[in-house]
Amino acid sequence: MSKLTDVPKRILIGRALRSDRLGETLLPKRIALPVFASDPLSSVAYAPGEVLLVLSIAGVSAYHFSPWIALAVVVLMFTVVASYRQNVHAYPSGGGDYEVATTNLGPKAGLTVASALLVDYVLTVAVSISSGVENLGSAIPFVVENKVLVAVTIIVLLTVMNLRGVRESGKLFAIPTYVFVTGVFLMIAWGAFRGLVLDDTLKAPTADFEIQAEHQGLAGFALVFLLLRAFSSGCAALTGVEAISNGVPAFRKPKSRNAANTLALMGLLAVTMFCGIIGLAMASDVRMAENPAKDLVHDGAPVGDGYVQDPVISQVAAAVFGDGTFLFVVLAAATALVLFLAANTAYNGFPLLGSILAQDRYLPRQLHTRGDRLAFSNGIVVLAGAATLLVVIYGADSTRLIQLYIVGVFVSFTLSQTGMVRHWNRHLRTENDPAKRRHMKRSRAINAFGAFFTGLVLVVVLVTKFTHGAWVALLGMVIFYATMTAIRRHYDRVAEEISAPEEPTDDVVRPSRVHSIVLVSKLHRPTLRALSYAKLMRSDTLEALSVNVDPEETRALKEEWDRRAIDVPLKVLDSPYREITRPIIEYVKNLRHESPREAVSVIIPEYVVGHWYEHLLHNQSALRLKGRLLFTPGVMVTSVPYQLESSEAAKKRARRRQEWSAPGAVRRGPVEKRSPKEPTAKK
Amino acid sequence: MSKLTDVPKRILIGRALRSDRLGETLLPKRIALPVFASDPLSSVAYAPGEVLLVLSIAGVSAYHFSPWIALAVVVLMFTVVASYRQNVHAYPSGGGDYEVATTNLGPKAGLTVASALLVDYVLTVAVSISSGVENLGSAIPFVVENKVLVAVTIIVLLTVMNLRGVRESGKLFAIPTYVFVTGVFLMIAWGAFRGLVLDDTLKAPTADFEIQAEHQGLAGFALVFLLLRAFSSGCAALTGVEAISNGVPAFRKPKSRNAANTLALMGLLAVTMFCGIIGLAMASDVRMAENPAKDLVHDGAPVGDGYVQDPVISQVAAAVFGDGTFLFVVLAAATALVLFLAANTAYNGFPLLGSILAQDRYLPRQLHTRGDRLAFSNGIVVLAGAATLLVVIYGADSTRLIQLYIVGVFVSFTLSQTGMVRHWNRHLRTENDPAKRRHMKRSRAINAFGAFFTGLVLVVVLVTKFTHGAWVALLGMVIFYATMTAIRRHYDRVAEEISAPEEPTDDVVRPSRVHSIVLVSKLHRPTLRALSYAKLMRSDTLEALSVNVDPEETRALKEEWDRRAIDVPLKVLDSPYREITRPIIEYVKNLRHESPREAVSVIIPEYVVGHWYEHLLHNQSALRLKGRLLFTPGVMVTSVPYQLESSEAAKKRARRRQEWSAPGAVRRGPVEKRSPKEPTAKK
Repeated sequence: MSKLTDVPKRILIGRALRSDRLGETLLPKRIALPVFASDPLSSVAYAPGEVLLVLSIAGVSAYHFSPWIALAVVVLMFTVVASYRQNVHAYPSGGGDYEVATTNLGPKAGLTVASALLVDYVLTVAVSISSGVENLGSAIPFVVENKVLVAVTIIVLLTVMNLRGVRESGKLFAIPTYVFVTGVFLMIAWGAFRGLVLDDTLKAPTADFEIQAEHQGLAGFALVFLLLRAFSSGCAALTGVEAISNGVPAFRKPKSRNAANTLALMGLLAVTMFCGIIGLAMASDVRMAENPAKDLVHDGAPVGDGYVQDPVISQVAAAVFGDGTFLFVVLAAATALVLFLAANTAYNGFPLLGSILAQDRYLPRQLHTRGDRLAFSNGIVVLAGAATLLVVIYGADSTRLIQLYIVGVFVSFTLSQTGMVRHWNRHLRTENDPAKRRHMKRSRAINAFGAFFTGLVLVVVLVTKFTHGAWVALLGMVIFYATMTAIRRHYDRVAEEISAPEEPTDDVVRPSRVHSIVLVSKLHRPTLRALSYAKLMRSDTLEALSVNVDPEETRALKEEWDRRAIDVPLKVLDSPYREITRPIIEYVKNLRHESPREAVSVIIPEYVVGHWYEHLLHNQSALRLKGRLLFTPGVMVTSVPYQLESSEAAKKRARRRQEWSAPGAVRRGPVEKRSPKEPTAKK
Repeated sequence: MSKLTDVPKRILIGRALRSDRLGETLLPKRIALPVFASDPLSSVAYAPGEVLLVLSIAGVSAYHFSPWIALAVVVLMFTVVASYRQNVHAYPSGGGDYEVATTNLGPKAGLTVASALLVDYVLTVAVSISSGVENLGSAIPFVVENKVLVAVTIIVLLTVMNLRGVRESGKLFAIPTYVFVTGVFLMIAWGAFRGLVLDDTLKAPTADFEIQAEHQGLAGFALVFLLLRAFSSGCAALTGVEAISNGVPAFRKPKSRNAANTLALMGLLAVTMFCGIIGLAMASDVRMAENPAKDLVHDGAPVGDGYVQDPVISQVAAAVFGDGTFLFVVLAAATALVLFLAANTAYNGFPLLGSILAQDRYLPRQLHTRGDRLAFSNGIVVLAGAATLLVVIYGADSTRLIQLYIVGVFVSFTLSQTGMVRHWNRHLRTENDPAKRRHMKRSRAINAFGAFFTGLVLVVVLVTKFTHGAWVALLGMVIFYATMTAIRRHYDRVAEEISAPEEPTDDVVRPSRVHSIVLVSKLHRPTLRALSYAKLMRSDTLEALSVNVDPEETRALKEEWDRRAIDVPLKVLDSPYREITRPIIEYVKNLRHESPREAVSVIIPEYVVGHWYEHLLHNQSALRLKGRLLFTPGVMVTSVPYQLESSEAAKKRARRRQEWSAPGAVRRGPVEKRSPKEPTAKK
């Protein structure tokens, strides 16, 4: 199979990787939690602040609504978690929202979900990195002073990391996530202890500030609207909850139960942290405003443009631990790191969803092959480009980006849950076991409530945030949807055009003979090899063809042809304008015209080189000629490669590429249970 | 030959073009003059100003040296013209400086000349356009206020024009050039008439200014150095003189004599205009300074940064015709237009020189084919990019750019003239006819004097301008030289590696059988066509190969294979990671390993589509696979194209491309005298 010298290498890197992968991808719960939860858990770093921010519009007195809003978020979180626990049990294969919606509601709903998720991935990167930069900035002033620059740099770093194919490792996720969760809980506990037991006064850095209400004494409909907007912003805490439902196959057995329990644990952690931070913020008198420069007042004067509003989590940490203390800095760093990891999950999810969509022919087919480096690269570059654009346009301001964020999530929540209701309805039609029917009815009730509640939230989000930026997300969804529909239509049209007729006759005259032509420029090894291969093919007729662009060279070629007594006739085409392509194309067309039942096989000797710049120096005429010949019906084009010494370099590169492992492999689990057969079936 | 429907089109566009071209490219002298002379004639728009500018360093009193400097430039111009008249007679084939230097002084000298000329073309674009913008700016203030923007815009326009392949027409050149020449002569005549006959006082717009000398009372060596620097700047008037020597074949018969006479006429026009403008500038008291903001004093105070120093030709025009008058504006416009035409000549010359260098394997071989659109495109883009870079770096300031300009020209003058001396020496060794010998000796004397004088100027230019910017031009030359040497070395190495051994045996085991593999993904028309072509080729063994990335699809494929009773065995490779490339490569390698004497022919069905975006949707896996297969020794790769309906669009595009005519065709003349044979030799 392999050469002897390759064996040590194979053992060290090649084959070993495979079983490795399979082993590593099955995640124990303690690793699965951080792998899947970095996105939803990290959102508690910005969601509580957004609630306070919106409330501040009605003045500091509106802050007392925040516990009620937190409660609403908690209820929503429990609803969504309960709903997705049903998904996990019903689709243990890891069918994500796209699959659930497509299967139960049809392809249009599925494509809508897919568009929403794609937009969402882009926003996950933009929001998480912007928020991470703000958190880091609370400890390191330079970062917040150059927000856009730092944010773009981190996007570039993540992109390069993912393009190079850094292996996702459970531990990489586990450490910062656990440090973050531990830090937040420690903060909540220590804050509660100081406040309730020691009776200390917690004082946030902004406690002395006053808020200039933009709308003083808001009441009635306006107040309700404001509270709904605050609630919408708080819903940012729910982003990423659905991730586990895609990753069931990556769990250890019993997969569904483990996944469902991890989901529940994640929900519990998220709401506790969310409520704890809101509570501490209230206790320590955190003051945040939508337009801090104007609306935050300190010593009687607005704080002005120079003021940087730190995230609520860092203000609370400053109040509990003290600003600049060791724990404060550790928490800020862990928060930033978890947010960057959350961004990284989008780098895994985006190309994966792309490959699923490609399988359904909504995206270019080459994205289909899972684990294909090029496919992932394209997806990663598109994602990074779109996220960078958003970060630059919105100045890496997480508050403004969050306005765009949750539309996609709730579109996907709502459609997925509606799909689940249909799913149970369908199964109930055939199921007779009363116990199972009861169970299904319970699940259906949960999903129905989930669909209703998330749908309601979607409407609230759309109504309260449309003009604040949600329209951008909707526009993005429409663009994705339209593009994917167009691609699918193209594939369908082509599939119809090329579908094989039942009668085994071709539409044109079927050729019965082959005339082979070997293109010759000089008599060197590549030409000799092409000639000898052409002779092996035993076509009906064989000739060598050269274009006379330089009479001197042509004469030399003819002489050497005779001297070597090559037993293939050499024909020379004149080319008054020193062109190569045109005379050959016309000659071939002419052949086809004279004998339509004769296929023409054009054999081109090619150099194979190892460096990209060498490509510029070789084969360009051959490449162009090939491109043109392919448009001529009844012609086939054969490349006979001649490997130059430098091609070894490219071979090595290709081998390295093969050993690359796709980002996100850990959370996806093994492909399929199949006998680990060698791909070389013939042996 | 061609289908009946093609005939009208052929007559209108296709074939007709050929004879057309041949007819049109033979230029009468009255058209040849403007075609070749726009570059040297246009340089009188900036050269006189540069002389005054340098002299101003020693104060306005130094201006009285300007007639002497003009005289030196005239003598030099006559020398160079006389020298090149010898070139034109000796190399009627249009051998430019590169050919003359290579033939007579060896490849290194030739390559030096080529590097110098390439740099020179870039600078022609940068200087001419910058100067053109300044001249246009003397009539339209907006232009001079946004110099860099306007200059880059014009470069982009010229680039697009040349990329699209606008046919160069003699008339296009003739009109602005003749308007310009007439305008300048009218100005000189009218100025002389007003000054000498009417006894009017000519007064330039800057006549009232005073010059703050940077070095008052310069004397001795310093003064000589300054005068030499002024002379060097005046030598800018000589750029482009050599162009005619490349274009002899474009002239009507007697070619050499016509070319030589045109050259003489051009020299005469140039020096008259040069001297006339200097004379008028002196008479109208034009004041120019190297740093006008600081050194030009008006009413006791420096004019400051806001002051825009108009070119000398426009100041003189203002003095003679009056500022803003009709003739003033016409002359400014004609000057700018001629300068842009001069830039355009570089767009023709650069890719042409590139194709000659490619013929000698100093540049990528694909540039060789003359009239090849892609080759020209690459050359044009490189030229435009480099010129844009210079324009941006030097703020489109013609004075600063001219410091870089003349090094290249004089390197090429000197080496070419030295080469001519060798040329005559060689001919004198074999020539016995005393009349001819006398003639040759006379020519040799002229060329020797030319070589000496231009060499001297080269030294002067290098010494006086090295630190002012000539080093940049030298650096550019070194970069071109090194790159071209490296490319040549690469080609030589490859040529040696692939040179055919005398014994007709290959270095590896020569295959004696062929095993053909048709790659199959689905059973559609392209696959059926590939299978039927593969059968026609009668290789020793034939099988179909599919990769199982989706068990469902694979099963369907197998069923249909059986149902259709296809008489080719179908093998399916397993691919646990849904890869396509790797299993096939490993399978092929394995085949080669087991039977080294069996060549493998991989046959790939391919779709041919018409739009670039469709390429993204098809064939990507096939393309990558092909790329990888070419690295596997003993494999040949055959594409069997299936033309989709949309491919018609691409075919039409290709046809349009064929009808494209290369820029600069007019000045180059027909390729070779050869019987106008059809390229399709077989008929």
